[in-house]
Amino acid sequence: MIEKKALKELIARVGKDKVFSDREYLLAYSYDATGLEYMPDAVVFAESEEDVARVMAVCRGHGVPLVARGAGVGYTGGALAVCGGVVLVFTRMNRILRLDKENLLAVVEPGVITADLQEAAEKAGLFYPPDPASLKTSTLGGNIAENAGGPRCYKYGVTGNYVLGLEALLMSGEKVRLGSETIKNVAGYDLKSLLIGSEGTLAVVTQATLRLLPLPPRRLLFRVDFATLASGAQFVQCIIQNHVQPSVLEFMDRSSLQAVYAYQGLPLDERVRAAVLVEIDGSPSEVAEREALFEKQVVAVRPLDRQRAETFAEQEILWATRRNISSAIAKLKPKKINEDIVVPGGRIPEMVAYIDGLAVEFNLCIVLFGHFGDGNIHTNLMVDPEDADEMKRAEIVLDKIFKRVVELGGTISGEHGIGLSKKPFMHYQFSPAELELFRRIKKVFDPLNLLNPGKIF
Amino acid sequence: MIEKKALKELIARVGKDKVFSDREYLLAYSYDATGLEYMPDAVVFAESEEDVARVMAVCRGHGVPLVARGAGVGYTGGALAVCGGVVLVFTRMNRILRLDKENLLAVVEPGVITADLQEAAEKAGLFYPPDPASLKTSTLGGNIAENAGGPRCYKYGVTGNYVLGLEALLMSGEKVRLGSETIKNVAGYDLKSLLIGSEGTLAVVTQATLRLLPLPPRRLLFRVDFATLASGAQFVQCIIQNHVQPSVLEFMDRSSLQAVYAYQGLPLDERVRAAVLVEIDGSPSEVAEREALFEKQVVAVRPLDRQRAETFAEQEILWATRRNISSAIAKLKPKKINEDIVVPGGRIPEMVAYIDGLAVEFNLCIVLFGHFGDGNIHTNLMVDPEDADEMKRAEIVLDKIFKRVVELGGTISGEHGIGLSKKPFMHYQFSPAELELFRRIKKVFDPLNLLNPGKIF
Repeated sequence: MIEKKALKELIARVGKDKVFSDREYLLAYSYDATGLEYMPDAVVFAESEEDVARVMAVCRGHGVPLVARGAGVGYTGGALAVCGGVVLVFTRMNRILRLDKENLLAVVEPGVITADLQEAAEKAGLFYPPDPASLKTSTLGGNIAENAGGPRCYKYGVTGNYVLGLEALLMSGEKVRLGSETIKNVAGYDLKSLLIGSEGTLAVVTQATLRLLPLPPRRLLFRVDFATLASGAQFVQCIIQNHVQPSVLEFMDRSSLQAVYAYQGLPLDERVRAAVLVEIDGSPSEVAEREALFEKQVVAVRPLDRQRAETFAEQEILWATRRNISSAIAKLKPKKINEDIVVPGGRIPEMVAYIDGLAVEFNLCIVLFGHFGDGNIHTNLMVDPEDADEMKRAEIVLDKIFKRVVELGGTISGEHGIGLSKKPFMHYQFSPAELELFRRIKKVFDPLNLLNPGKIF
Repeated sequence: MIEKKALKELIARVGKDKVFSDREYLLAYSYDATGLEYMPDAVVFAESEEDVARVMAVCRGHGVPLVARGAGVGYTGGALAVCGGVVLVFTRMNRILRLDKENLLAVVEPGVITADLQEAAEKAGLFYPPDPASLKTSTLGGNIAENAGGPRCYKYGVTGNYVLGLEALLMSGEKVRLGSETIKNVAGYDLKSLLIGSEGTLAVVTQATLRLLPLPPRRLLFRVDFATLASGAQFVQCIIQNHVQPSVLEFMDRSSLQAVYAYQGLPLDERVRAAVLVEIDGSPSEVAEREALFEKQVVAVRPLDRQRAETFAEQEILWATRRNISSAIAKLKPKKINEDIVVPGGRIPEMVAYIDGLAVEFNLCIVLFGHFGDGNIHTNLMVDPEDADEMKRAEIVLDKIFKRVVELGGTISGEHGIGLSKKPFMHYQFSPAELELFRRIKKVFDPLNLLNPGKIF
């Protein structure tokens, strides 16, 4: 519990219109997309870097935990105050401070919603590629904290690839400016990359300089349906190996499709066991050339069906199916254990077949979809927490999946981060020596363990 | 000086065919491309990870400094044993262990020469983009230690963007595996990025997993000559702003061209004050489309001359001019102060004009060339160390240049690293708080300061 004195000091230094400790506020900021709930002791809405510095000073002075929070839509509990303390909300720091066409960059506050930056960039003929499924609600600060990915990351890379510079406050009260406004920068240790994906445990980011690209003038979206899971997964490999180089290469299995069609109230062709979304972008002739290459692959695999979306409106219909999967499958069972494993591209058919086998062997409902282009398989174990036997089987299966992922050269998290939910699985990927390095680096930045305590390790 | 006992132990544990302490060996490994010289006490040629572990154990046991070294062609003294000790040479660990077409990656030992990996990749229809000018001599381990860039990094990014995973040994004797074989990976702190560019001060890399791309089927190279420095620098901006998206955008000033033409024994058109190299790569139709866009810009600026190289042989002739600049200008004066500053792309004309003004004002020979596409300006102050007044003027000018670079949102090093040569300039870019973080991170990895001591800070 936060002392009364600390709370008073917060109000005195930041202002009572930004500090809340009544139950309804605490409740509203006690949960995220994990479904877990932890009550903070106070919620503060920062409006400037000065506010952030003041809150950090009070937390430092009183030994109060501090959890930075964007939109609170993370999947691993990164924004949850598991040890109580202050939740520092960035939604009011949502200004795009600069959109620089000449130098192809944007300077933003952490609370800017990802889709808002994308829209502002597009209006200027520019492009901010990272596109987490949550882009219409999640903030850039949250994206940076988790190093968020998304469908277009197959071609364009993840959030971290677009962060040129960061301004951040350390728990000591000092301010650091990491990176620069340039793509190349090799001066000193790469602390910018260390902060990206550190889930709010090392410092609090107050400003980011993000790289923009020229907007690709043309985009086409396709959906190809298959009669077996394996043929869909293999089609993804065909596209990669034959250098179609799409910007998006998304996969949906039978269960995802069934759930999302039911959710949308649409009928689904009985025979469809997998669907692949392929987006091709670039200049008109480049897109035409890649489309021809893509069509050759489609003809070769003889799919059940193939749709082509040319206009933005047509494309949004195909996208809706993919973007609604998460909400749709949540209705299948009381609980969704949502993993974001990654394996090297060529290992996907093997990994998918392995998971499919486990689902049958252990009688579990496992829904697969995701960014198969970059090997990122969203693996959802649909369970009922009341069913002890099912929960036990799910535990065994998860164990097997993570082991196999690491054996195949993959990683236990491709875009959601570790947070709270994946802590128990860190030992699969990291040795005691590696975990010890993490702990010691954490200590360098935050010796009193006040920044987002209880996360990652 | 290394104790006799430590040397004996090295020989006993690693083998006498790999450990040398006679003067000729020590001399041969006492210098790099900076021209500075520091004699090590012993030179060891590692042939395996086990060798590396054994050498590190001996150094740890006896408190002996350890400097990892690739080809020793760095520009900032990264491979120099400034405190004596052991120079651990990786040139014998030069095997490409795996070239994986299916997963688009290569697993390499640190001593592989960059050009050798490029060639092996090309034979398999793949592409390893990072291309430091030293690529025919420098090693991948050295490239990783300095996070090396190169001309193609404008489109493709620097070495760090192609490192998927690293195996490294810590000074404690423990082995860490950082990253994975996948593009996406957000589990734990990004220690892989922390090691990249850390100039051998944190750990010793023993194996790297590198990302490969499909080989672009077509490449064209152009050279455009200008009558003024400003018009050349502005042409670079035209190319960027009009989204020609070349893979290379290189700049050479009058002094570079004069020096390199003299070096090659060729006559240079008196009127040429700047030349720009532009490479366009991609699929045939993509290249044709970009070429048309490029030609429109060329026509608009009315250059002095324009050359187009279609075949590999023709392109190599144009490349030779660029690649020979460093050697050629070294003959202009006894000493070359070689800086690799970076400013945001749109700031190049301003920065170039500023440096040009300083050269006139302080009567100095300053040669400019480099990767103007990504703002990376190789700034060479040609001086005579015997001329005290000239050295003093150079010092003042350097001071002004670095200050302006940081003011413009740039960085003091784009690809060479800090090493020994740039240590005095770190304070321009980093605050005391930031430098303190560097020092404390160094301590986490190497508490006794045995790994490449005396570098960066």
